[in-house]
Amino acid sequence: MNYKIIRYTVGWVLNFEAACMVLPLICAGIYGEREFGVFALCAAVCVVCGALLTAVKPENKAMYSKEGYVIVALSWLVISLFGSFPFVISGVIPNFINALFETVSGFTTTGASILPEVESLPRSILFWRSFTHWIGGMGVLVFLVAILPLSGGSNLYLIKAESPGPSVSKLVPKVKSTAKILYGIYILFTLLEIIFLLAGGMNLFDSLTTSFGTAGTGGLGIRNDSLASFSPYCQWVVTVFMFLFGIDFSIYYLLFVKHIFGVLRSDEFKAYIGIVVSAIALLCLSCHGYFGSFSELLRHTAFQTASLISTTGYGTTDFDMWPEFAKTILLMLMLSGACAGSTGGGIKVSRIVILCKSIVKEIKIAAMPKSTHKITMNGKTVEHETVRAINVFMMAYLAILLISLLIISIDGHSFTTNFTAVIASLNNIGPGFADVGPTKNFGFYSPLSKLILIFDMLAGRLEIFPMLVFFSPYTWRK
Amino acid sequence: MNYKIIRYTVGWVLNFEAACMVLPLICAGIYGEREFGVFALCAAVCVVCGALLTAVKPENKAMYSKEGYVIVALSWLVISLFGSFPFVISGVIPNFINALFETVSGFTTTGASILPEVESLPRSILFWRSFTHWIGGMGVLVFLVAILPLSGGSNLYLIKAESPGPSVSKLVPKVKSTAKILYGIYILFTLLEIIFLLAGGMNLFDSLTTSFGTAGTGGLGIRNDSLASFSPYCQWVVTVFMFLFGIDFSIYYLLFVKHIFGVLRSDEFKAYIGIVVSAIALLCLSCHGYFGSFSELLRHTAFQTASLISTTGYGTTDFDMWPEFAKTILLMLMLSGACAGSTGGGIKVSRIVILCKSIVKEIKIAAMPKSTHKITMNGKTVEHETVRAINVFMMAYLAILLISLLIISIDGHSFTTNFTAVIASLNNIGPGFADVGPTKNFGFYSPLSKLILIFDMLAGRLEIFPMLVFFSPYTWRK
Repeated sequence: MNYKIIRYTVGWVLNFEAACMVLPLICAGIYGEREFGVFALCAAVCVVCGALLTAVKPENKAMYSKEGYVIVALSWLVISLFGSFPFVISGVIPNFINALFETVSGFTTTGASILPEVESLPRSILFWRSFTHWIGGMGVLVFLVAILPLSGGSNLYLIKAESPGPSVSKLVPKVKSTAKILYGIYILFTLLEIIFLLAGGMNLFDSLTTSFGTAGTGGLGIRNDSLASFSPYCQWVVTVFMFLFGIDFSIYYLLFVKHIFGVLRSDEFKAYIGIVVSAIALLCLSCHGYFGSFSELLRHTAFQTASLISTTGYGTTDFDMWPEFAKTILLMLMLSGACAGSTGGGIKVSRIVILCKSIVKEIKIAAMPKSTHKITMNGKTVEHETVRAINVFMMAYLAILLISLLIISIDGHSFTTNFTAVIASLNNIGPGFADVGPTKNFGFYSPLSKLILIFDMLAGRLEIFPMLVFFSPYTWRK
Repeated sequence: MNYKIIRYTVGWVLNFEAACMVLPLICAGIYGEREFGVFALCAAVCVVCGALLTAVKPENKAMYSKEGYVIVALSWLVISLFGSFPFVISGVIPNFINALFETVSGFTTTGASILPEVESLPRSILFWRSFTHWIGGMGVLVFLVAILPLSGGSNLYLIKAESPGPSVSKLVPKVKSTAKILYGIYILFTLLEIIFLLAGGMNLFDSLTTSFGTAGTGGLGIRNDSLASFSPYCQWVVTVFMFLFGIDFSIYYLLFVKHIFGVLRSDEFKAYIGIVVSAIALLCLSCHGYFGSFSELLRHTAFQTASLISTTGYGTTDFDMWPEFAKTILLMLMLSGACAGSTGGGIKVSRIVILCKSIVKEIKIAAMPKSTHKITMNGKTVEHETVRAINVFMMAYLAILLISLLIISIDGHSFTTNFTAVIASLNNIGPGFADVGPTKNFGFYSPLSKLILIFDMLAGRLEIFPMLVFFSPYTWRK
């Protein structure tokens, strides 16, 4: 294990976090809040620790899969730890585990909160909460790879460990340029959403924080009713952008380089559109008696569909009150999650498409044993190794889901609450049903359960294996 | 597709069912019930149809995997259809879908009922209900293979398609002899349980029906409170036998041929014991305030553990009233299910062991990339094809679970009810939680939901692929 490159990279993560804290610091300055000092102190702590860790450059910059996993897991643990300090020091969330929960929920773009109300919070704290979504959405190490001369080709291990989806495709031959393009698209779309929201009469603060939450597919809002009190226009803007941020970013790259056929060939993209359209149609059928007009029905069902499939978790209505059929559709959207290579969480549409194809393949093998059967995606044969990796991912996902469910059930809350709390954490959604429904929060869980859900959020964001490898004794054996 | 061998074998299945109906017919005769005529008529219908289908022997007895799947799926559909006639004709369950549900629940050894009370039912009908468990437990085609000169070596395809578990091991080189040994052990253990129950002062009818339900790991009882009003001794006898019928029958064969080392090497057996012991310990911890004495606590927790891991579904207490942690443990037992090669349902312990090992292997590959890592079971390397088959099974299992959940949610019942109803059907358990808890029944579901649950019970009993292949258009294409 190359410990030096781990130390060095994690140091840069802290420097990066210090830089990120400058934005809420400015926010506190503008609004004249006493949190100015808090953010100054926290940024200073980050930069001092970061400077110490990055003082000596490692001679050997070699990095393999193992270091990739460890760096990514450790970076996310460290950034969450230091990121929780503003909540604790400002006294907004004095309990450390609660503050850590809120921060991890922010960075992992989950959006689950332990706070019963947020409107009384200082502006700078709200800004930081939303900004953690934006940082976590595209990824910390993707950003560092884009701007730092880290370690050449082996950066791919970092991107692979941090980026969601069954296989990471480099858009261009250089990893560094790929990371730059991804962040470029991310910034551009965030700016677009801000402009559209400003155009709808929303103020700058609300537009910024709402867009950060949408871009990272986070979900922590700045109002107690999430987005219910926003204007229909703004709700539609957010709906469209949640949908857009749930799409594989390489689709946008293909569009930019005028590769429209490549877009049309994407099985995942087609399935994503198909799921969204069918879900909205079924939800409209199921909830037609719940809203006054068709436009209202369509707006709320489209919003909740985009919010849950992209794993954002914003809400315009208390969908926990919807009929059971509608809630089950929403649960399916939560499980599915967004496209690989997007900022969304969940199992990912491409995995589900490949898994469905593998079931059909098995039936075909039994029914037509003499023919050869292959799984294809986007017109290409899916490699056996990819299918294997997806299967192992699914099994690890299920194992974590069930173990988490068992442990948090000790608290005694209902099955629906526990099950959807774990799903909402592991898939980085935010709200679930029953006691963790869209109008509720996670504050009532015991510290042990919160730690489990914190693990789940991180495991979900990093697609499980970085966390398992980091906490496995095999990794640390000589 | 060899249609003639399909017709011929299904014909023999009907002849076999006619023979099976002689027992409840005798029962009706002894108790002087008017159902004597009903069973005589139903047996006659079976035997006439059977005779017509078996009149012409097929010249070509060749059978492959595809025919194996189709014969097994069709046989189970046919035996359930004809098996439901006594319920309908006697007027006990006049509604056909309800009668089919009850019969499929019987043959698949699920034990879910649509009847709110059973004590007023004719004895012969209760006998038939319990006897379907016994027939379905070890399998209809296993029985036919044991006694009929069907088609030589290709019988293995039938056994493979009907027997539970990721891989079928022939105990002896000849398939026919393997089937005979399996049925021999099955009959012996059933007789032992009957004797032990009789020794506890139970009458012959109760001993027979209770033992049929235990042996097949079914769960349809003859009293409204399942086994709650049985004596502690009888409850312990049933506990032990439920546990025993959940073990791979090849373990007993190894013991008979004095291969004790083979038994000790079985990873599945060790894991099964481990799960049972830990579950009882955790349940005792969780429920200690619910019972008057430790012996009562131990009896009820041991009973429920054995009942749910073996997927029997008998109950001695309303475990839906237990604390959430205890209920979550029970849910895990339901999901796990018994050992492969037993009469129990569920995912099977061996699959879970192999899946856990495949997760650990993946972590090892990441942590120690230079070493080679293999999955072993019972000291032997698990073939890649077995792991692949388990993964596809799991994915098909999940897909059916989620689609079923979505469809039955249209009825509007709670998530806990729907989720555990699907699990209880797919894993052939019987009771779930909430509205399908141990003191409730499935009668309130709509006909559509019942059809879905009927499919789930059959898919669960046959381990999914026979049903998928049977209903797939690929199978029937020229």
